[in-house]
Amino acid sequence: MSSNGDRDGDDGRDRDRDDLAWETLGSDTDYSCPGFDVRRDDVRLPDGTETDFHYVDEPQTVVILPFTPDGDVVLVEEWRQAVGRVNRGLPAGGVEDDDADLVAAARRELREETGFEAESFEQFHTVEPANGFANSVHHYVLARNCTRSTNTDLDFNESIRPVTADYDRFRDAVFAGSVRDGRAVIGVSMYEHADREHTRRD
Amino acid sequence: MSSNGDRDGDDGRDRDRDDLAWETLGSDTDYSCPGFDVRRDDVRLPDGTETDFHYVDEPQTVVILPFTPDGDVVLVEEWRQAVGRVNRGLPAGGVEDDDADLVAAARRELREETGFEAESFEQFHTVEPANGFANSVHHYVLARNCTRSTNTDLDFNESIRPVTADYDRFRDAVFAGSVRDGRAVIGVSMYEHADREHTRRD
Repeated sequence: MSSNGDRDGDDGRDRDRDDLAWETLGSDTDYSCPGFDVRRDDVRLPDGTETDFHYVDEPQTVVILPFTPDGDVVLVEEWRQAVGRVNRGLPAGGVEDDDADLVAAARRELREETGFEAESFEQFHTVEPANGFANSVHHYVLARNCTRSTNTDLDFNESIRPVTADYDRFRDAVFAGSVRDGRAVIGVSMYEHADREHTRRD
Repeated sequence: MSSNGDRDGDDGRDRDRDDLAWETLGSDTDYSCPGFDVRRDDVRLPDGTETDFHYVDEPQTVVILPFTPDGDVVLVEEWRQAVGRVNRGLPAGGVEDDDADLVAAARRELREETGFEAESFEQFHTVEPANGFANSVHHYVLARNCTRSTNTDLDFNESIRPVTADYDRFRDAVFAGSVRDGRAVIGVSMYEHADREHTRRD
């Protein structure tokens, strides 16, 4: 019924699955646009009712938190049509079929969106940003010792400007609530916590 | 061009808008399903190219972080069809036309999904969880001194069980990476930071 049977955790996965679980009777793509598909699943609810449920279907995404050797963060300023403003956030993009793994996807997206190359990559967190209406999975990848090595390689409709910024100022803006971008909020706050834990262990 | 002209912040809003901004030439609903619409905007890119862009269009959402008088957190265990698993997370739902404001929406959603009533509410953070493909805005609302007062009032296809849980254990699970739900990650991490700041000021 679920492909997640090999996972368990403190967030309810594998808890009392049978009481709440829906049975999937069928699944089709109901709509397609350049950015994503919408799937319609035919389902049976726990009380036996048969209905359908629609959700956004998109590839897994890597979100990169890239640091320069000086400790600055590499950000992208990007037009976000859905919210009608320029967004200052972390480089990110969908995993493609040719990407061998998440690190390869992160390396490619960092290069395409910023022109920077990193010395090393490390995945440090994974979330589902909107699992009420989308199957999106965002993998957060730390990129260390990033230096500019090439020009950006943008899709025709990506309006992106890479910038380097003082990391502490950006972190403070996240915590002050003046950064609306959810990826930046999760990337910075989870990195800050992991960093504190790491410092405590040393 | 943008309805966000009254805002500014450290995340790039209002920075060099004209260099990156797209011009919206028209907008229509391209698809509808029970959970959301997809809008298609006809746009002109900064280089003059005319194209279109599709994104999920949904109402603003409230996400509630509810505490009992004992300091436990009220959570919902809910089947999430998009990711095929039971999700343990924060009560949340879309703002409806009849909601006078965000607090009214939070009060209604908390009651419907958990049967709990709060003594007071306070909005403490706002993010766009996926502004690359959706105009979703999530408002985080702290609910204090919650007590159970009524039965839940669920939509026919909501498979939800309210639970109270030890807050420290849930927070630790968020920071350990075993909670995949993005709303829970943002709610807990931003609350933790605000709480630390508050303690420092006292």
